[in-house]
Parts: sequence; C-alpha cells; structure tokens
Amino acid sequence: MNQEIVTLDYGSGGWRTAQLIEELLLPAFRNDALAQLGDGATLDLSGPLVFSTDSFVVDPIFFPGGDIGTLSVCGTVNDLAMCGGIPQYLSLSFIIEEGFPFADLRRIIQSIAQTARDCGVSIVTGDTKVVERGHGHGIYINTSGVGQLAHPGLSPTNIRAGDKVILSGSMGDHGTAVMLARSGLLEGTEMVSDCMPLHRLAAAALGCGGVRVLRDPTRGGVATTLNEFVNGGNRSIELDEDSLPVRDCVRSACDMLGLDPLYIANEGKLLAVVAPDKAQDVLNALRKCPGGEQATIIGTVTDTHPGHVVLKTLLGGSRILSKLSGAQLPRIC
Amino acid sequence: MNQEIVTLDYGSGGWRTAQLIEELLLPAFRNDALAQLGDGATLDLSGPLVFSTDSFVVDPIFFPGGDIGTLSVCGTVNDLAMCGGIPQYLSLSFIIEEGFPFADLRRIIQSIAQTARDCGVSIVTGDTKVVERGHGHGIYINTSGVGQLAHPGLSPTNIRAGDKVILSGSMGDHGTAVMLARSGLLEGTEMVSDCMPLHRLAAAALGCGGVRVLRDPTRGGVATTLNEFVNGGNRSIELDEDSLPVRDCVRSACDMLGLDPLYIANEGKLLAVVAPDKAQDVLNALRKCPGGEQATIIGTVTDTHPGHVVLKTLLGGSRILSKLSGAQLPRIC
Repeated sequence: MNQEIVTLDYGSGGWRTAQLIEELLLPAFRNDALAQLGDGATLDLSGPLVFSTDSFVVDPIFFPGGDIGTLSVCGTVNDLAMCGGIPQYLSLSFIIEEGFPFADLRRIIQSIAQTARDCGVSIVTGDTKVVERGHGHGIYINTSGVGQLAHPGLSPTNIRAGDKVILSGSMGDHGTAVMLARSGLLEGTEMVSDCMPLHRLAAAALGCGGVRVLRDPTRGGVATTLNEFVNGGNRSIELDEDSLPVRDCVRSACDMLGLDPLYIANEGKLLAVVAPDKAQDVLNALRKCPGGEQATIIGTVTDTHPGHVVLKTLLGGSRILSKLSGAQLPRIC
Repeated sequence: MNQEIVTLDYGSGGWRTAQLIEELLLPAFRNDALAQLGDGATLDLSGPLVFSTDSFVVDPIFFPGGDIGTLSVCGTVNDLAMCGGIPQYLSLSFIIEEGFPFADLRRIIQSIAQTARDCGVSIVTGDTKVVERGHGHGIYINTSGVGQLAHPGLSPTNIRAGDKVILSGSMGDHGTAVMLARSGLLEGTEMVSDCMPLHRLAAAALGCGGVRVLRDPTRGGVATTLNEFVNGGNRSIELDEDSLPVRDCVRSACDMLGLDPLYIANEGKLLAVVAPDKAQDVLNALRKCPGGEQATIIGTVTDTHPGHVVLKTLLGGSRILSKLSGAQLPRIC
C-alpha cells in the first residue's frame, strides 16, 4: 500500500478494499474469526449476552491521552462492562473521508489494536466505507461489542435510600482536553483525556457485591448520568459539592470557559451506586486498580427530592442539577 | 419534538438526546431490551453465534425500492443469514449532519422498524451522534447484528469441482437504480433496487443440504464475490454468459454508461455454491420463495483455471473476470 491518502477505491468492495484488509487490518488484529473473511464472524460464545454499539466522531481525532482509535475500543468495552458483561468481541466499521492520510489511518489502527489487546477483546468483523471529500471529517468509527453477561440485574431501578454514589476519579478530564485541543489552547496546560478501559474497575467493584448499577458518565457528564438513574422514579441523589473530585487544571479551564465539570464528558470514569454496607469495600477495591486510586463517595441516595439530583453547595445551599441542556461540547466522542 | 431539523443538541447526550430516544426511537422499535435504556442490551441468546457489522452511506438516501433505513436492516440481516445465522438482534447507530430534516429522519426510522419487523429482528441498542454542517452528508447509519448460528461450517474452502453456482435472481438492480437516482436519470425507466432481506431464501437453500457457501454480492457485484470464493485456492469458477440474468432496463442503462452488470452491487440476491446432486433441490426451494422466482444456475466449479473466475462468452470465447478494480460506483450502500 504505497499510496499516501485514502481514495474512493478503498471503499469499493473490490481489490483496493481487499488490499486494505489484507495489508493493514488483518496483520493488526490477527485472529481466527476475522481471518475467515466472511460476511460476519462465527463466535463460540454462550449466553446470556450483553450487546452494545457506539459511533465515534471526536474532533480532533488525535488528542492528549488518546485518539479516535483508543476511544472507539474503550467506549464499547466500557459500555459492555457497565452492563455487567465481560467484553470479548468487537466489530469495527470505518467511514473515511476521501483524502484521509494513510499515516493517520495506520496510527489509529495501531491504537485500536493496542487498546483491544489491553482489554482482552478481539476485533472479529468489520466494514470500510469511503465518502467523497467534504462529506465527512477525516474518519468516523463505529464499534459494536458482545460479551458474556457475568453480573445480571444491574439497573437504576435497584437503588434505595441510603445507597452511596461512588465516582472512580476526577471529573471532566476528557471533555476539557478535547475542547482545548480543538481550540489550540493546550500548550502549557497539563490537560489530558482520561480515556481508558473500565473493565478491570467494573470487575473489582462487582466482585464486592452490593452494586446496584454502574455507568460511565460520558456525554452529558456526571450530572446527566445521575439524572438517568433517578428521573421518573421515587429516589433522589444528593451530591456534596466539596467531595467532587476535579483536577485543578480542569477547574481552571472550566472557569475560564464558563463550563461546569459536572456536565463534561469523561471517558475513563465509572459511577457506581452501592448498598451502604458495601460502599467501603467497593471503594477499597477500586482504589487498588490503576485509574481508580482517587475513587471517592460523592453522594447519597435519598427520598427527599423524588426524581431529582440535588447539589449541596459549599456555601450550605442546594440546587437541582438537571440533565445537560443544549450541546455544551459537540463531537466530544 | 416540534423542531423541523436536527440540531447539534440532539447528539449531546443530554435531554434533547433523551427526547429523540423517547419520542421517536422507543415507540418505533418497542421491545424490552431496548426499553432498559442501559449502556447496552442484555440478550438471552445461546451460542454459537454469528456477529456482523455494516455502515451505510448510500447517496441518495431515498431511492426507488428503498432507502438508507431499509438498506441498513437488510444489509446486516443478509450478512448474518449468509453466515448460516438466524438474524435476531440489531444495534442501530446514527451519524446525522446538523440541519437534517426531522421529516426524513422519521421516514427512515419507519423504514427501519418495518423492515426489522419483516425480518423478525429487534433493534435492542443504539447511539446517535450529530456532526456539524459540512462534516457529513445527511445521515450515515451503522447496524451490527447477532444471531444464533444455525448452519455452521459454510466456507469457500468447501467448494469442489463439479459444484454448481446458483444466483437467486437478476444482477445489478440496486447499483443501477441508485446511480440513476443520483444522476436524476430515473424518469421513464423501470429501475428499482432489489433491496430485500435474504434470510428466508438462505433458510430455504440451507434446508436442502449440500450448500458449500452463501454470500450476497453487494459492493463489487457477482464477479467480485465469486473471486472471493476462489482467489488463492485451487478451484476456478466458469460462468456461462448466456445464463446470467440481467433485466432489460439494467442492461440498457449499463450499456449506456459503459458499466458491466457483473460488477454492480445487488442488495437482495444471494450466491450459493451447491453440491451437484443438491443443485436442483436448492433451485426449486429458492424459486418457491418471494424474490427467488428467477433463481438460476450461472456456472460451475472447475479445476481448469485455479484461483480464477472465467466467463464463457456468447461468442464461444472466454475471459478472466478479476475483482472490481477502482470505484465504479462510490456510496452505493
């Protein structure tokens, strides 16, 4: 493959597509299921299963702490893990804009391969489409994933008054890093995306028992995810403002830009609602895992404001946190 | 949802995204797995499984005989069926360009829902991203699918000299219809895409026994798919030019445009390589199914030109058919 850019031919389904598969994709992701090169993969996987999908359109495609490839694997691995599943098999589908540099494509494929290895997942089936210049933006990626359901029954309907809300680390790192990268404002900052796979943290938490529900607070941030847990039900969640972990550089960037870290996307954090008698065990287990050292209790489930998330402020007041309204940061993932 | 166009807010992960899900998607696709609204779906499905993915970027999104929604369901259903699987569950992921009309989105969602019902598949998990104007082209859709593997072992490595190559109907209908629709040349023609689900035809063929491999000749057409069967191996496939089914209007359009129907995408046809003693049974079974009435034997597996597909022409000559070279028709699916 001695061309420098991706041309429409590579999406034709003909020999250029075959060349892309044989020279770039198969060597990077080598496994038996993929090597069959059928219309799909055959998997020796027993149910019950978890199944999830995400498309990734992040801009810019390379950012501090990761790229669209890392994100594409982590995003689906994390969704499967949050459902109580063991991430095992991924599909990978590219929508590439004509003119995209092969050097960037190779780099992204290496990120995908490396992250997949780290997560123990195999890329078993895929698809590549190429669209004309001006009808895309570099590259968009979809991954879908399947895996065995190891911990059934996780659901927001399980949460009870007194349960503790645990966050595995600091808020807003991914969204702020991507936003500053997009604006060319990164220089001199310590901003870095928290993009990472969460299957080990999820397994550690679930191994303790007492976990009602897990979710990774991506688009919409912690505030939106917690709303998804309680909206329309009888429970409320009260957050302590002084317990919310935010890195100094993220807080400064948010102050400057008028953004609230509670609504900014994370890509390597999980929220767990846990029975009170298991909360300390879960905290301890998370803190032993790489990426979970800063895990902390950020709030409690109550009956006081049914259907709402309430922030107890540092000044002793309280305010309702709704779901994210508007598009604070488009194309964050 | 009283807005007329999709804005960036609908991809924010916040309340506009929730509104889209609750007002448009859940009512169209209603099922228990989707209604959990978790990060993924939990499926009570036993292995072994088939798993497949496709992204759809067809231009135009509405064409005679279907639209990008119909195509998105048929494409993945057909891939699963060609692997010997029973299509059961689909994921659905949208990449929508800012400014896309809600009227078109509703129409596409209805096509998806109707085609899914026809195929007996459930849309169980999904994702929606919105990109800025000029960074997409209306709507791109990814579907991935899982289902039980009912007929293991289908593979091009099974084919033997003497096997018959069966095509379930006429060639080139989808690609020609889309191309004429794109060029505004449809008026006065009878062109219509053959886009349809193939799970019934696949089940009918597989029920007869003797099927070595199944595949739907989409991008790259019949010639490219047959090359995938024999390239790199010891077998060859000989096609009889006078047995190749092409509708008159497709042949005329191809003649006019200098295209070869053997390389044009189909979206509702299957190719089966079948043991000689079962070929008539498979033909009979296919012909009893809607969409398979014109099934016919188009060629034979031989040892004469290892690794190649050879066309025996009407004039008594023969020529090698390679894989599609170049992008005859970009964005055909």
